[in-house]
Amino acid sequence: MKNIMYTSVLLLGIAVSGQAKEDSIQFSKISTEILNRGKAYTELKDLTQNIGHRLSGSEAYEKSVQWAAQKLKEAGADKVWLQEVMIPVWERGKESLQIKTSNGQWKTVKMLSLGNSEGTGGKDISGDIIMVKSMEEYTRLSPEKVKGKILFFNYPFSQDFIETFKGYGDAAKYRVSAAALTAEKGGKFAIIRSLSSAFDEVPHTGAMRYKDGIPKIPAVAIGNTTADELENLLKNQTVTAKLNSNCGMKGEKLSHSVIGELTGKKDRSVIVVGGHLDSWDVGEGAHDDGAGIVQSIEVLRTFKNLNLQNNHTIRVICFANEENGLKGGLQYGKAVKESGEKHLFAIESDAGGFTPRGFALEMSKEKRDQIKSWTPLFFPYGAYNFEGQYSGADISPLHEMDIPTAELVPDSQRYFDIHHTEEDTFDKVNRRELLLGATVMTQLIYMIDKNW
Amino acid sequence: MKNIMYTSVLLLGIAVSGQAKEDSIQFSKISTEILNRGKAYTELKDLTQNIGHRLSGSEAYEKSVQWAAQKLKEAGADKVWLQEVMIPVWERGKESLQIKTSNGQWKTVKMLSLGNSEGTGGKDISGDIIMVKSMEEYTRLSPEKVKGKILFFNYPFSQDFIETFKGYGDAAKYRVSAAALTAEKGGKFAIIRSLSSAFDEVPHTGAMRYKDGIPKIPAVAIGNTTADELENLLKNQTVTAKLNSNCGMKGEKLSHSVIGELTGKKDRSVIVVGGHLDSWDVGEGAHDDGAGIVQSIEVLRTFKNLNLQNNHTIRVICFANEENGLKGGLQYGKAVKESGEKHLFAIESDAGGFTPRGFALEMSKEKRDQIKSWTPLFFPYGAYNFEGQYSGADISPLHEMDIPTAELVPDSQRYFDIHHTEEDTFDKVNRRELLLGATVMTQLIYMIDKNW
Repeated sequence: MKNIMYTSVLLLGIAVSGQAKEDSIQFSKISTEILNRGKAYTELKDLTQNIGHRLSGSEAYEKSVQWAAQKLKEAGADKVWLQEVMIPVWERGKESLQIKTSNGQWKTVKMLSLGNSEGTGGKDISGDIIMVKSMEEYTRLSPEKVKGKILFFNYPFSQDFIETFKGYGDAAKYRVSAAALTAEKGGKFAIIRSLSSAFDEVPHTGAMRYKDGIPKIPAVAIGNTTADELENLLKNQTVTAKLNSNCGMKGEKLSHSVIGELTGKKDRSVIVVGGHLDSWDVGEGAHDDGAGIVQSIEVLRTFKNLNLQNNHTIRVICFANEENGLKGGLQYGKAVKESGEKHLFAIESDAGGFTPRGFALEMSKEKRDQIKSWTPLFFPYGAYNFEGQYSGADISPLHEMDIPTAELVPDSQRYFDIHHTEEDTFDKVNRRELLLGATVMTQLIYMIDKNW
Repeated sequence: MKNIMYTSVLLLGIAVSGQAKEDSIQFSKISTEILNRGKAYTELKDLTQNIGHRLSGSEAYEKSVQWAAQKLKEAGADKVWLQEVMIPVWERGKESLQIKTSNGQWKTVKMLSLGNSEGTGGKDISGDIIMVKSMEEYTRLSPEKVKGKILFFNYPFSQDFIETFKGYGDAAKYRVSAAALTAEKGGKFAIIRSLSSAFDEVPHTGAMRYKDGIPKIPAVAIGNTTADELENLLKNQTVTAKLNSNCGMKGEKLSHSVIGELTGKKDRSVIVVGGHLDSWDVGEGAHDDGAGIVQSIEVLRTFKNLNLQNNHTIRVICFANEENGLKGGLQYGKAVKESGEKHLFAIESDAGGFTPRGFALEMSKEKRDQIKSWTPLFFPYGAYNFEGQYSGADISPLHEMDIPTAELVPDSQRYFDIHHTEEDTFDKVNRRELLLGATVMTQLIYMIDKNW
């Protein structure tokens, strides 16, 4: 590719008012600042490689709390504090899954216990595998058939959806419910095909839930190619599985979300930008959600460095415990409800540090239409899809209080190859993609701060 | 990220005519076919890992000709042939660049001779380095000062542009002209800072040109961090460089572009889709432009597999020698001019196998407006930026004949980290991103085939 006569023409029929021109100049200043002097990428390297994964309750999570507070201070926050929150403590420990055909040898396969799952208490539990490929197949299974067996939920991640979050949403019920469904019919433990868009053996963990009154049996995930192999084996023979694991809930613990802000010059109503500081206990939590953390800090730093004189308070929140409890988000929402502190807007970045494509908006039609009217400003930055109507999990309690909320929408093609795996590492993050996400979030907050 | 209540609403105010509905159903069939059963990704793995890089004139290039012909047959082409074309043969050979401060030791740095550059004939050439950071600084240099010296063009790739092709275009003149500029003022050889968006020591090669009547001296590229180090050293001391290289032009050779087509059911006017089969002689030519080759073959395969009954002939062209001569594109253009064969449209994919964002269009306003009117159909596939007005290098001769031309526009953030380097390898390509590019090209050709 050597075509150097690259010209791109932006002609969206903008009525270039003086105001739009001024906004466009500010957009450009923000972009130039972040793409050249942004620290999100080097900060993400530090967080992921010097602290690493940081599950709620772990020592690493507590280190990341100190780290985030320090980075917010360095970014120029007027005020930095920790918000107390009780979080669940789940630990993995050692674990292994083996499978065997009737005339074969035990073979160890790559696996991960699902988050919040109980283990086998360090003992072997084994049984023959029964495979179901859908909820319909599960429903048709009689408890007599399942009793004492291992249920293998082999529902594939659909490649059909263009936005991969839809494929994730489509398959998520199997991860969340596999243990309860298996226990309900008397099974010993559950295996699921990972919620993964990749064609590899990497298992994906993620939260599961038990059901009241149903025994808490283990649930584990295997990668796509392992699931393919198992499916093949099961075509014409009995396959036995043996699980040995030590994971389980270890009570609760006092921990913290980290908050830093730039005080509003005109009033103290709040604009929230955040991500979640915790991650799963594998990989480095780079895209999920180290990216959202460093992008949010970048927003504050950029307002400070460019002296953008925010009318309202811009508050960065590094939420605790999104992955397996949402306690940080719930606690913040509770505090806002109690204090009555006025919140104008909240946005989260929690869909990976990939090239931004737009923003999902959960708010009144009037406010959505106003943001959509800024499309010509956002077009040159590639983030101009405002059609999604959802927002980040951590700020859902704010949405429930009728505060307008949003989420950064990055390109989703690569996310579910690595989501919740040992592969979610810093080297999968591209510097420019990450910084562009911070750029468009800063631009959106700039516009909202000025116009709301 | 565990928000599974993902909803996205497509409300672009489409008047959903019966025709639009039917087109939308076909779009969905194309997408489902390619995302689930597309072979572009596995074919790219085969091409890049079993043949590898394939510079014009190399044995590997000749292997790739046979490979492409075979893949086109397997994809179901009605007719496959090779188009003869004389191509330049440039060979690299062994090369090394060393630098030294006056009281230091020689230190070898990573480098690549620029494509088409002459070497030192296996002898050492050395001299003190003079650095310029811009064309203006070069212009102010007197020939007396440059004589016998090494000119270091240290112009940085700008991070300011959102579309990285603009940063590439901005810096390209230094790569193309460094040798001639240096020779004009009596220098011995030229070093350039690579046209690279990455912060690493990886050198980027690429085509350079000599000027008639000016001595053909060598030009080499060093990576960004190497250039930073050299710039630092030069702040307060003399630095000497020593080059030893064997590259050079080895005449011409008969070679081939590869062509395969699905004959039109209604007439024989031609729709071209292509990429270039050659690559630079480092890395694997995965994004540049193995991606464009396998995507183009996927278009043909999909028309065949879905029995889409193309009205016009759909012709896949795997162009020879884009990188250092454009001879394949020029030869095809010449043949069309001579035969008068009617061409409706031509599109190239030569900007990497990344998530598609839209299409650049070089054609009449009327035709561009018609394609833009299809935005609601393309919106769900994420490719709906039709603002660029350029097209691929290989089809520029067709554009000059007033044939409407276009280029697939993928996301550009990662491309110039790896472009023309040892890092342009298969593992940098994401399966879904690559297949989505093939999907939207197939959809566009489907619409043009039906409506033009």
